[in-house]
Amino acid sequence: MDGATRTGGLNRAPRWRRWLPSLTFLEWGRGYGRDTLAADALAAVIVTIMLIPQSLGYALLAGLPPEYGLYASIAPLLAYALFGSSRVLAVGPVAVVSLMTAAAIAPYANAGPAAHAGAALALALLSGLMLLVLGVLRLGALANFLSHPVISGFISASAILIAASQLKTLLGVKAGGDNLPRLLVSLAGQLPDVHWLTFAIGAAATAFLFWVRKGLKPLLLSWGMRARPADMLAKAGPVGAIAVTATLAWAFDWSARGVHVVGAIPSGLPPLTLPPFDPALWRDLAVPALLIGIVGFVESVSVGHTLAARRRQRLEPNQELVALGASNVAAAFTGGFPVTGGFARSVVNFDAGAQTPAAGILTAGGIALASVALTPTLYHLPQATLAATIVVAVLSLVDLDVLRRTWSYSRSDFAAVAATFVATLLLGVEQGLVSGVAVSLAFHLYRTSRPHIAVVGLVPGTQHFRNVLRHRVLASPRLLSLRVDESLYFANARALEDAVNEAVAARPQLKHVVLQCTAINAIDASALESLETILERLRAAGIRLHLSEVKGPVMDRLQHTDFLRSLSGRVYLSHYDAVHELTPEVLAGQEAPPQSV
Amino acid sequence: MDGATRTGGLNRAPRWRRWLPSLTFLEWGRGYGRDTLAADALAAVIVTIMLIPQSLGYALLAGLPPEYGLYASIAPLLAYALFGSSRVLAVGPVAVVSLMTAAAIAPYANAGPAAHAGAALALALLSGLMLLVLGVLRLGALANFLSHPVISGFISASAILIAASQLKTLLGVKAGGDNLPRLLVSLAGQLPDVHWLTFAIGAAATAFLFWVRKGLKPLLLSWGMRARPADMLAKAGPVGAIAVTATLAWAFDWSARGVHVVGAIPSGLPPLTLPPFDPALWRDLAVPALLIGIVGFVESVSVGHTLAARRRQRLEPNQELVALGASNVAAAFTGGFPVTGGFARSVVNFDAGAQTPAAGILTAGGIALASVALTPTLYHLPQATLAATIVVAVLSLVDLDVLRRTWSYSRSDFAAVAATFVATLLLGVEQGLVSGVAVSLAFHLYRTSRPHIAVVGLVPGTQHFRNVLRHRVLASPRLLSLRVDESLYFANARALEDAVNEAVAARPQLKHVVLQCTAINAIDASALESLETILERLRAAGIRLHLSEVKGPVMDRLQHTDFLRSLSGRVYLSHYDAVHELTPEVLAGQEAPPQSV
Repeated sequence: MDGATRTGGLNRAPRWRRWLPSLTFLEWGRGYGRDTLAADALAAVIVTIMLIPQSLGYALLAGLPPEYGLYASIAPLLAYALFGSSRVLAVGPVAVVSLMTAAAIAPYANAGPAAHAGAALALALLSGLMLLVLGVLRLGALANFLSHPVISGFISASAILIAASQLKTLLGVKAGGDNLPRLLVSLAGQLPDVHWLTFAIGAAATAFLFWVRKGLKPLLLSWGMRARPADMLAKAGPVGAIAVTATLAWAFDWSARGVHVVGAIPSGLPPLTLPPFDPALWRDLAVPALLIGIVGFVESVSVGHTLAARRRQRLEPNQELVALGASNVAAAFTGGFPVTGGFARSVVNFDAGAQTPAAGILTAGGIALASVALTPTLYHLPQATLAATIVVAVLSLVDLDVLRRTWSYSRSDFAAVAATFVATLLLGVEQGLVSGVAVSLAFHLYRTSRPHIAVVGLVPGTQHFRNVLRHRVLASPRLLSLRVDESLYFANARALEDAVNEAVAARPQLKHVVLQCTAINAIDASALESLETILERLRAAGIRLHLSEVKGPVMDRLQHTDFLRSLSGRVYLSHYDAVHELTPEVLAGQEAPPQSV
Repeated sequence: MDGATRTGGLNRAPRWRRWLPSLTFLEWGRGYGRDTLAADALAAVIVTIMLIPQSLGYALLAGLPPEYGLYASIAPLLAYALFGSSRVLAVGPVAVVSLMTAAAIAPYANAGPAAHAGAALALALLSGLMLLVLGVLRLGALANFLSHPVISGFISASAILIAASQLKTLLGVKAGGDNLPRLLVSLAGQLPDVHWLTFAIGAAATAFLFWVRKGLKPLLLSWGMRARPADMLAKAGPVGAIAVTATLAWAFDWSARGVHVVGAIPSGLPPLTLPPFDPALWRDLAVPALLIGIVGFVESVSVGHTLAARRRQRLEPNQELVALGASNVAAAFTGGFPVTGGFARSVVNFDAGAQTPAAGILTAGGIALASVALTPTLYHLPQATLAATIVVAVLSLVDLDVLRRTWSYSRSDFAAVAATFVATLLLGVEQGLVSGVAVSLAFHLYRTSRPHIAVVGLVPGTQHFRNVLRHRVLASPRLLSLRVDESLYFANARALEDAVNEAVAARPQLKHVVLQCTAINAIDASALESLETILERLRAAGIRLHLSEVKGPVMDRLQHTDFLRSLSGRVYLSHYDAVHELTPEVLAGQEAPPQSV
């Protein structure tokens, strides 16, 4: 068979070459031409327009001055373009990671703006270094321990937290808190102080942006515009809201009337910054940095995979770790904060026709241009407008239906979603993630510690064995066929002992027990001791123990043990062979009606 | 088939009746006769003689006054006799649990003897309540997460720690520390102050006890004594050492020459005590109490199972939880400290012919008699003699060969033993246990997150499919048979996606992918999403996805999902059926030599 040698042990193939971090631009840069440049440039313009308000807003969400958002959207994009394996991923500040950053650096806010910003740099550096190490060590699979339900619950809860945290800006009051109850209590206390003009601006901007999202594209289409430009124009809604409210704020001097505006943003390219090398700070930020890195990686890889599949391209997770790690290190040295690949932004980049990471380089150029030339015009921009863009962006991430879907499929998946969701809202982002992972692992371990063990019999007319309780099958009272539906390891070894004891006690005529090992993918030392115990107990009762359909890797390991040498029965290639040899009368029964099933 | 309905879903049988804590003495008490009483009484006498020095020594090991050991050997034995499911388990203070108690209550030593002893009572109460709760909730399986390698490494390391902790008593110096480096450093600093007479007593007692253990029985046998009395006499060695050294110490007034003696032990029955109900104390002791409870349970159940099997009796783990829980609660209210079933002691009880838990009741009576009448005679007993009995008892628990055995079988089991062993010695008992569990879980998760995925083909002349790399099998380039050797869950869902992508990319003629699901015991929500992704990608490439040999419980769950409705292929009962229908040419090849394998 073609390719059999390549794929027989699929996860054993020598993959080392692919894990070596490579400069991916050497690949896409070859043969880069004018057409590709035109496509990339168009995408870059559109993403730049989308990214300006987002980067400002997410910097404020993280608790940092707005220019940090611009800075985090320049060097990191260049770094990603060098190493990234996705052609279309758009890197920069994103909502959930900014929220996690806010939570992680909040304790340093009291030490002054410099210490606060320094913590953000250190967080980006640590997170980047961790991603680089994970990438080089090929540990991208670690991210799989964040199950889909956990991610889903986490993103929804984070989005609600983010939206709630923006309410204070929309209402023009001061409030804070790192979980929903504290945020709401703090907001409730401030309600008498609502600044009504700010609230009016915020509410109008929010309503406008929702309308742009839902109603503008159909309207443009009904006016005869083609689908793609209509789509792109709808994405520019936030820029429109910014232009209008900034102009109004300037014209009517809203700042003097108490509306919080963005204010003076230093013009110029990102500064070179040195993250603080303080061991105590690094130790305190280690866990948040790891969580931010992994969440960012998961979010980024998930959109990357989806978009790559649409164009039949491949995403290399460990290469992505390296690229995102480099991006965050770049952010740390250029006045930024943790970044990752954004979902909405990457989809826009893809839809706008981006062909290569050069689109990211051009976007970085666009943002650089904005931070040099555009910042004075943002002076009068009301912060409430940015809050509105954030609220509208994140609310689309809330997916409460996942609770219903997981409930109907599996209670343990539901428990993981619900635990993550509730813990994130009530305790905070880090606690939410950790609770979710703990709950999903606990349920997984609980399940595997109680293996399903079926008594099987022969399906008449075949060589196939199935559960006696679910299928009409043939069996002999002299032979017990047990199929253990789980790998044997310390947590379930005793359960097998109990099951064999019980099954044997109920069968006085029993002479043979055959363990069908189709579902046993590993046997650890504890389980081996249990098998030895079972063997000895059966031997004492005059019953022989056989194995069938033992898998190659399991057999390789057993070969070195006393267990196989002292086995009272045989190891059969197929379960049918075992039954054929030990109780041929069962096979004879295939012709006649079975007496005892 | 007889009993099929009872055992088909072995772990689903309605077991609720068995889990209800029952007063087991109602069962064994029925028909209790004179012969049984005689057997139980003989065993009780021998166990009492063995238990007196042990209980005194283990109390000192735990850092408590010696009489606490006697108290812990009365009421807990009665409680166990009421609830226990083992006929021969001998409950009381044991070495490892006493060491763990010492570590847990050490922080309270500075607050005075009353607070220190109160912490021991609270620890016994908490540990007992936790065991009761686990028993009632049928969570005995939790103990399985302490794998055999972890227990083995922990017991060996604890035994070394205990022996090292007794060196100070054997040398007549003051030293302390809760891990091996601290103990040894502290001892080394005290070496100039060795009390030579104490050292001589300790060394002589140790040498004598080792000789009794190894040499006395053969000697007695060579004198013509029968095996059982010789064995029993050898077990009485510690009592002999105590009698001799206590008499010598009294005759020569060693106490006045600086030998530490047991001193005044209050005579009388155990006092009624109330453990301190202090929330802060309880919170601090919660983790040690849980670990002590679980370790005690595991040690107790392991010897209980072994002995029950020898007489074809059954041990009910959840009933044992209740019984050990009740024993510890009893200890907490009668001036004791945490107890469990002891290994050596239970074996002696068994060998001496104990028939029922009445032996335990009689032993309790014997210890009560001793604590009323015998304590004055123990005044002059050198503590070094007790230390010697402990050292000789625990060194037999050290099993370093487990390192070699696990190394040769599996590196991950070795890592778990080694981590437990090293962490226990270097960091302490709690850290050692927690490290061991963490390492064994981490390896288990790592393994299941990288599933073995095999391309399989038909073994000629059978209906059986095996790995194309290990067996000479038949296959078609139009059909890919993949067998995933692991349940699909969040940690490995992505690996399946990658494997299918890779295998499909290598097979241009491919029309069908059939997943043989023999080893898939569960599919969680994350894995279901991955299957949906695979289905869509294959559909886009014009390839149909089929499943075969899906297990009952998995199928039940899939039935509710869109995945099955949108499946491009079919679900076959057997993999052979799938190949038969989709690529009959492969079966035709069974007659002719296969073209491509």
